[in-house]
Amino acid sequence: LTKHTYYFSRQKNTNIRLTLPVVCFVWQIAMIILFGVFIRYDEESDTHWVETKAHDNITSDIENDFYFRYPSFQDVHVMIFVGFGFLMTFLKRYSFGAVGFNFLIASFGLQWALLMQGWFHSLDPQTGKIFIGVESLINADFCVAGCLIAYGAVLGKVSPVQLLVMTLFGVTLFAVEEYIILNLLHARDAGGSMVIHTFGGYYGLTISWVLYRPNLHQSKRMQGSVYHSDIFAMIGTLFLWMFWPSFNSAITDHGDGQHRAVINTYLCLASTVLTTVAISSLSQKTGKLDMVHIQNSTLAGGVALGTAAEFMISPYGALIVGFFCGIISTMGYIFISPFLEKTLKIQDTCGIHNLHAMPGVIGGIVGAITAAAASESVYGKQGLINTFDFTGDFKDRTVLTQGGYQAAGMCVSIVFGVVGGAIVGSILKLPIWGDPADENCFDDEVYWEVSEPATHHLLFIIQPLGGAIVFDLVSRDELQTTFEIFI
Amino acid sequence: LTKHTYYFSRQKNTNIRLTLPVVCFVWQIAMIILFGVFIRYDEESDTHWVETKAHDNITSDIENDFYFRYPSFQDVHVMIFVGFGFLMTFLKRYSFGAVGFNFLIASFGLQWALLMQGWFHSLDPQTGKIFIGVESLINADFCVAGCLIAYGAVLGKVSPVQLLVMTLFGVTLFAVEEYIILNLLHARDAGGSMVIHTFGGYYGLTISWVLYRPNLHQSKRMQGSVYHSDIFAMIGTLFLWMFWPSFNSAITDHGDGQHRAVINTYLCLASTVLTTVAISSLSQKTGKLDMVHIQNSTLAGGVALGTAAEFMISPYGALIVGFFCGIISTMGYIFISPFLEKTLKIQDTCGIHNLHAMPGVIGGIVGAITAAAASESVYGKQGLINTFDFTGDFKDRTVLTQGGYQAAGMCVSIVFGVVGGAIVGSILKLPIWGDPADENCFDDEVYWEVSEPATHHLLFIIQPLGGAIVFDLVSRDELQTTFEIFI
Amino acid sequence: LTKHTYYFSRQKNTNIRLTLPVVCFVWQIAMIILFGVFIRYDEESDTHWVETKAHDNITSDIENDFYFRYPSFQDVHVMIFVGFGFLMTFLKRYSFGAVGFNFLIASFGLQWALLMQGWFHSLDPQTGKIFIGVESLINADFCVAGCLIAYGAVLGKVSPVQLLVMTLFGVTLFAVEEYIILNLLHARDAGGSMVIHTFGGYYGLTISWVLYRPNLHQSKRMQGSVYHSDIFAMIGTLFLWMFWPSFNSAITDHGDGQHRAVINTYLCLASTVLTTVAISSLSQKTGKLDMVHIQNSTLAGGVALGTAAEFMISPYGALIVGFFCGIISTMGYIFISPFLEKTLKIQDTCGIHNLHAMPGVIGGIVGAITAAAASESVYGKQGLINTFDFTGDFKDRTVLTQGGYQAAGMCVSIVFGVVGGAIVGSILKLPIWGDPADENCFDDEVYWEVSEPATHHLLFIIQPLGGAIVFDLVSRDELQTTFEIFI
Repeated sequence: LTKHTYYFSRQKNTNIRLTLPVVCFVWQIAMIILFGVFIRYDEESDTHWVETKAHDNITSDIENDFYFRYPSFQDVHVMIFVGFGFLMTFLKRYSFGAVGFNFLIASFGLQWALLMQGWFHSLDPQTGKIFIGVESLINADFCVAGCLIAYGAVLGKVSPVQLLVMTLFGVTLFAVEEYIILNLLHARDAGGSMVIHTFGGYYGLTISWVLYRPNLHQSKRMQGSVYHSDIFAMIGTLFLWMFWPSFNSAITDHGDGQHRAVINTYLCLASTVLTTVAISSLSQKTGKLDMVHIQNSTLAGGVALGTAAEFMISPYGALIVGFFCGIISTMGYIFISPFLEKTLKIQDTCGIHNLHAMPGVIGGIVGAITAAAASESVYGKQGLINTFDFTGDFKDRTVLTQGGYQAAGMCVSIVFGVVGGAIVGSILKLPIWGDPADENCFDDEVYWEVSEPATHHLLFIIQPLGGAIVFDLVSRDELQTTFEIFI
Repeated sequence: LTKHTYYFSRQKNTNIRLTLPVVCFVWQIAMIILFGVFIRYDEESDTHWVETKAHDNITSDIENDFYFRYPSFQDVHVMIFVGFGFLMTFLKRYSFGAVGFNFLIASFGLQWALLMQGWFHSLDPQTGKIFIGVESLINADFCVAGCLIAYGAVLGKVSPVQLLVMTLFGVTLFAVEEYIILNLLHARDAGGSMVIHTFGGYYGLTISWVLYRPNLHQSKRMQGSVYHSDIFAMIGTLFLWMFWPSFNSAITDHGDGQHRAVINTYLCLASTVLTTVAISSLSQKTGKLDMVHIQNSTLAGGVALGTAAEFMISPYGALIVGFFCGIISTMGYIFISPFLEKTLKIQDTCGIHNLHAMPGVIGGIVGAITAAAASESVYGKQGLINTFDFTGDFKDRTVLTQGGYQAAGMCVSIVFGVVGGAIVGSILKLPIWGDPADENCFDDEVYWEVSEPATHHLLFIIQPLGGAIVFDLVSRDELQTTFEIFI
Repeated sequence: LTKHTYYFSRQKNTNIRLTLPVVCFVWQIAMIILFGVFIRYDEESDTHWVETKAHDNITSDIENDFYFRYPSFQDVHVMIFVGFGFLMTFLKRYSFGAVGFNFLIASFGLQWALLMQGWFHSLDPQTGKIFIGVESLINADFCVAGCLIAYGAVLGKVSPVQLLVMTLFGVTLFAVEEYIILNLLHARDAGGSMVIHTFGGYYGLTISWVLYRPNLHQSKRMQGSVYHSDIFAMIGTLFLWMFWPSFNSAITDHGDGQHRAVINTYLCLASTVLTTVAISSLSQKTGKLDMVHIQNSTLAGGVALGTAAEFMISPYGALIVGFFCGIISTMGYIFISPFLEKTLKIQDTCGIHNLHAMPGVIGGIVGAITAAAASESVYGKQGLINTFDFTGDFKDRTVLTQGGYQAAGMCVSIVFGVVGGAIVGSILKLPIWGDPADENCFDDEVYWEVSEPATHHLLFIIQPLGGAIVFDLVSRDELQTTFEIFI
């Protein structure tokens, strides 16, 4: 059996029995303390709402922001936990890690995001408190999305402790770049093409570059999918695809703002599907489709409309964005990913470069152009002010200037992703985090109690008297059933 | 190995590397041009909404139709992509095609539907434009549903190009019959018993009849399910079942109209489950249940309440409809489907006759009867006018006349389904669409790069020295792991 | 082959071809009759709503309760059918029973619940009718949840007829204890820590205790999961987890009440995930995680906040509750479940003691304490009255008294669970319900037509001339493909 035991040798110590519980406990206790000091209900979720209503002459409870945003929030919530989680289950033996670690880091990340975003965006100067409501929950989920995107690049190659560290710093960086882009530059980015996708994409890619594994081919047998893991991944794809209109509209203006963002995103994504299928089919000799493209590139349109979804990009404009994103993203999987891996030494498990980084940059550019091209004749005088929030310090800003700041915002998100990723990657390179050996990557058995393999790789030892003992090569367990072979 | 290569012979050319990309690209470009010419945001999704609000004295953004319909829209959206997509994954090796082609044709269909329905229902005579909002998106999804129903009849037997052609014509026919039924006949059909299910059902069945394959038994090994494919299908079943109240209420009247349609559909579907289980259990010697029935017939009540859901059918009336639909649909699977296949030469992969066509007709009849039986004492004077929209040209219509027009509407939907299906079926019979040979039906390998089979059908070649080479009969790949057999 | 036929011997008669259809038909007909006599649309779902609006000076349709509660209702609906259904699919060969019987009993239960809850809570004394609207549907789903929890304890060990009987009595008991707790004691329990989870948990555990099977080890080979069944279960886990904020807020007060319940539950559940992971990792030598814990204990926080979610427990308070629930629930799986089975003879398939019973009791206690600690300075004068509904007969109740009644409510739910479970368990012990033999527990083949096993346990008979006939040991079918072995 010597030959097969090779698969199970461990050159690295992946014991996380100390680090994982300690990190979870200490960080969760820290969260409780910080929440105790800083976080309070906002006036729409506090029992004093009845007084606020009377004071502000609000006639109906339905005016509570909850009813404007809760359905969208729940859709976003599904995208974060089921969408991202299941999209990554495509690997044949890393589905537990995909959906389980996604669950873990999102649950931590959203707490930390409420604090970080609160400090930067909504710390009340008088009371020193952060007041949260449903919009805060959406923003926390958004912030987490950036880190889950980054997880896609390192899927299967890191330990859960590394993922938690990556999320801690990712959320922190996110809150800062978001503050710069949205508050200082006053750029618009409701669906986060720049803030979420570009940042998250480059953050993950840079970390993956720092953690480059030259001998990753040793776990080649675990890369790739099996039939049913591809179908599980389609659950993730579809929930992301269907609910992306909610993602891009969740925090846009009440009324026409949310309404328009939904229409644009819906159309853009539909268009993306057709060009993804076209390019995928072109890439194979007999026109067969590749599940990797269908699972991922069909979503690129949603990413690329993250900034412009609330603008008057017009329905056909949304279709055009989707048209090109499907093409570019699919060609990314065919041509760019191999190039990144071979030449730039970036191992990108889920191809986040093609699904998030590149479409995110496209989205930033589309946003800058459509902002610069906005006009009072199309938007109406008040409509223009509302859409770009040309109020307060920014009431004299022109659309051309706005376009420039949008472009500047995109550069900020790239810089934060690359520089932040390089620093965090270096931290994650320390040999204390329990990451798996090259030959054990993409294997749930490293961090999970795995019951039984889905597919049996069997070893038969046929005994002289006709029986046979059967070993399972994946789990090394002797199967319960002894096969009977009568010769 | 000669015997096994038989499975992989191809008498037909299934190379779609030219046709599929061309169709996708050309049609998508056509969509962009037509959208550019015709489609605009409606007044509730345009930045001028702020002016509309002031003009119409609307006090709150929550009055935007978006907030009345968006949660229902998202539920419908899930039904279209996850519901229909996963319901069809029950076949052991056609789940990629089920969920993937469903994704493709729905994405194309909804764009084409926005145009077709716009031209027929909401083309502004002055500007020549179609103004879209959230209700348009719901209607587009509805229109697509008709084509996805039809897909169920031909699942596994057609190429994606054929499906796109079927969708192009299906959406076109749908928009016309819908215009005749809803606008000219002024019939009510909020949940589409007639317009969606009856039309879609007969459209698909007729196409399947035209494309009859006498030698389909050659792919018998691929028909039927495996354990996990049946569970995937239950994801589709449940999301359809749970969200059907949203489907039937998505475009009904604000307020009590949506509220009542939800209650009726919820009750009707619950009742259907019990009688489906009863008949399914009766059909087996030991009372065992059949997954095919549970996956499909439990939904028949939702179909059959598509017309009457918004009427005052009363809670027990809804239960009665569900009661009979569960019985009839399940008996359809047991008795009628085999009859259709053997005698009428209609091969209906998903049994859409039992789930959509027959319950759709029942729904039309129930709608006609309940409309004819409506009375001012039950509905109230204004309630009756609102429910049946007895305004404008139709302000003098009686409920009896309305019942007659409802019945006429049902006939229109059947005629459009059968005649349209016959014509489209003939077009699809042309030998240019890349459809699979009889022995390759229900097999994802024809149109998809398939990674690895879920279940191994193995061929052992035991070598003289004790090793063995193992071939995988489904994918014809040599397995990576060479089994070792020590005799 | 004699040795293997052992697996398929049946000492018990599991033929349910008579009982199951009879129960389904008779009960469904009874529902129709009772609905005909008692159930009517309420004024917000009746066509007379247009008159109600005018009479009550309601200016907009959006004031209809439908728009406050429908999104939450649909989330709850998903939890009941997909959440509970898929959570129980973890067993390797009982997924049909998990998701299918869950579907059946929930569909029956919600009808019966509308009647039972109607009679106890909203029977109009003048007309003798029950008027239903969207809130009634939510409450019916809630009531069903109690029975589905109980199903978790007996999963795989009972027949569908037994489950229907269990649901009939479960719903009945639920309506009575709910009436006592909410109406007579005037306790608050919007998310049902006591009314749903504590009752359902003890009801199921007591039934399982009465139905104790000393020889359950005979079906040991069917206990436990396979890789993909664990991923299916995660679908259930995540939909429960994501939508739990909707569960706890679905019937709370309009406005801040729903808003606050969402925030509290969202935070509490996030905290639970981290401590669950920590304890799960601590429980294994190398820090590996156990899927059972991740699937179940991560949800304990939602259960424990069922009572207090609408209170001003404050964000950090919610985090603290989640913190301890994750620890206690996971330790329950590690230590208490084995103890219950060995010492107390309670076989709890899904560990509902750790997910529902124990966290439910914690939730009752948390509710009592936070109610007793409520103050006008935190809630505001009117806020306090609104939150605890100190109106009518209860307008002079103090928060301390309220805390006492909350605690009393919890005792009521435990007593109803245990006593009711003992009685119903005795009824279910009658040898007429078609329950499976000990060696056939956890096996879908008893009640379902099962197509093909997911994993093959093969029996080879190698023939003299080199061929081999392969038998499938699970399904006893001869495989279609005859392996060829060349020696």
